[in-house]
Amino acid sequence: MKFATYRNGHPDGCLMVVSRDLAWALDASGLAPNLLQALQDWDMIAPELERLSDALNAGRKANAMPFDPARCMAPLPRTFQWCDASAFLNHGQLMERAFNTAPIPDFDTIPVMYQGASDDFLGPCDPVPMPDEALGIDFEGEFGVVTGQVAMGAPPEVAERAIRLVVQLNDWSLRSLAAREMRSGFGFLQAKPSTSFAPVAVTPDELGEGWRDGRVQLDLEVTWNEERFGYPNGGEMHYSFGELLAHAARTRKLGAGTIIGTGTVSNAGGHRGSACITERRVIEILEQGAPVTSFMRFGDRVRMCARTPAGEAPFGAIDQCVVQDSAVEAA
Amino acid sequence: MKFATYRNGHPDGCLMVVSRDLAWALDASGLAPNLLQALQDWDMIAPELERLSDALNAGRKANAMPFDPARCMAPLPRTFQWCDASAFLNHGQLMERAFNTAPIPDFDTIPVMYQGASDDFLGPCDPVPMPDEALGIDFEGEFGVVTGQVAMGAPPEVAERAIRLVVQLNDWSLRSLAAREMRSGFGFLQAKPSTSFAPVAVTPDELGEGWRDGRVQLDLEVTWNEERFGYPNGGEMHYSFGELLAHAARTRKLGAGTIIGTGTVSNAGGHRGSACITERRVIEILEQGAPVTSFMRFGDRVRMCARTPAGEAPFGAIDQCVVQDSAVEAA
Repeated sequence: MKFATYRNGHPDGCLMVVSRDLAWALDASGLAPNLLQALQDWDMIAPELERLSDALNAGRKANAMPFDPARCMAPLPRTFQWCDASAFLNHGQLMERAFNTAPIPDFDTIPVMYQGASDDFLGPCDPVPMPDEALGIDFEGEFGVVTGQVAMGAPPEVAERAIRLVVQLNDWSLRSLAAREMRSGFGFLQAKPSTSFAPVAVTPDELGEGWRDGRVQLDLEVTWNEERFGYPNGGEMHYSFGELLAHAARTRKLGAGTIIGTGTVSNAGGHRGSACITERRVIEILEQGAPVTSFMRFGDRVRMCARTPAGEAPFGAIDQCVVQDSAVEAA
Repeated sequence: MKFATYRNGHPDGCLMVVSRDLAWALDASGLAPNLLQALQDWDMIAPELERLSDALNAGRKANAMPFDPARCMAPLPRTFQWCDASAFLNHGQLMERAFNTAPIPDFDTIPVMYQGASDDFLGPCDPVPMPDEALGIDFEGEFGVVTGQVAMGAPPEVAERAIRLVVQLNDWSLRSLAAREMRSGFGFLQAKPSTSFAPVAVTPDELGEGWRDGRVQLDLEVTWNEERFGYPNGGEMHYSFGELLAHAARTRKLGAGTIIGTGTVSNAGGHRGSACITERRVIEILEQGAPVTSFMRFGDRVRMCARTPAGEAPFGAIDQCVVQDSAVEAA
């Protein structure tokens, strides 16, 4: 099944079922008003959503409308928990080499993960408000999963069974604020503004061969101002999603609707480019002694789209521009 | 106004209005099904809640029932954002002295704050499930505020106007996991299990002289296994709640229902004791060379209750026991 959330004036939006080819959408709010609610009552509602989805994919729904990503909020415009890992070791190791910092303890045996803000996610085509260009505006292309309830202490293989949906996201970052927040030991807060999501959340089976070993085995194509910036593959993730979920659930249960992210998708070798500016800058430091690429400016556009080998885009695309926050601008 | 949330089988519970003296409660779910919803529609619903509250306090409500904290979930059993600061400098400075660590940069000019899990808060009398006694189970007595929407970049005086409610909470901590998570730079995750809340959330005006300068000017009495452990006063908070809110909102807006905590209440001088075990241990290290007090064991009980000089307890009390998590125990 594939889902999207249309704007309807409510903070949680309106649940839509989307056809496999992303051509058609169907209002599913008769079954659950929004995706967050559907996830709470998943066992009861999923079979009915499945029937709707099957009918839509078979072309048997007269009230289907052409799917319009511009009407989309994030699949979950807000939820009760969002945790983001750094599961591509290549990314972290490049950082350490460039900045000559001490290695994160146990980086390859215990996941690192920060708790993010989940009260205000951005839709795929929403303008991205930022307070100041000087803060080092950067994108981070990632995959994520949305879960049902996970019990405290669930092992990876059990936790993985709670995965309901797979998503694609941009974990916006403000690099100038990150270093101080890391040194404080309390982790990222101001350095992580609202996160953006591709329009379509999919059940893992929709990815076919693209979902294997608890990982999204797809290229994530990142385009910055019309120039292809990178297309790293998600299969190189060091920890599976089951392992990330078990890490998050070690000392507490996870509520239905929890989103867990991979951290910046990154491949060793570098010939596939990067999914964030910082990683390119770090490679420039290592190869040329100094960074060449600048961070984003107001008006810059970033497009992120995961692709199957056949060229399909199962999540649709994030395609949005950075703007100065109007309240900050007016102040 | 004073609010509580009664268990009703729904994850967000049932909104109750509570009388000023905490003797009576009235089902308010006809106005808003739960407190989270009331906060979304505050401007519309608050006047009606006020009428209900006035009638209850005047003894004019036949359907009022005796207020029972044992029926209470957290006032917000879950919400979309929970951020906790460390706003009592005495606490952080004691830590640094005892462990001889580098000072947190700009500790007295920029708040430190971590993003916490908001999907599973515990009620005041709920058993507190923990996976393992060996993890250094500790309590942290704190105050917090619940907000309406706050715009990105809002200055402290504007942000403070968005404060809707004041709460009292226990930010449960697992100390054995904290050091590694701080060193990772990503901040606390496993080290912060589900947070507990006192039964009653109050509008700031209910605190009278106990709410001044954007701070809760009350003693927080902490009792561990029937022994008084500390009674530090909230007035010594270095940053006001307005300043904490402005910090959280610097690079993003905050959704209605956001909770911001003070961090462990702590007073210089030490004669008022502590609101967490770690602080007492740190004082023992400084005075005696080694910690004497152990962390909590399964079956231990902690009671936290803020008091006015007249002895009133505006939030009611947190009174709960630590237990081994049943799923972890069965595994």
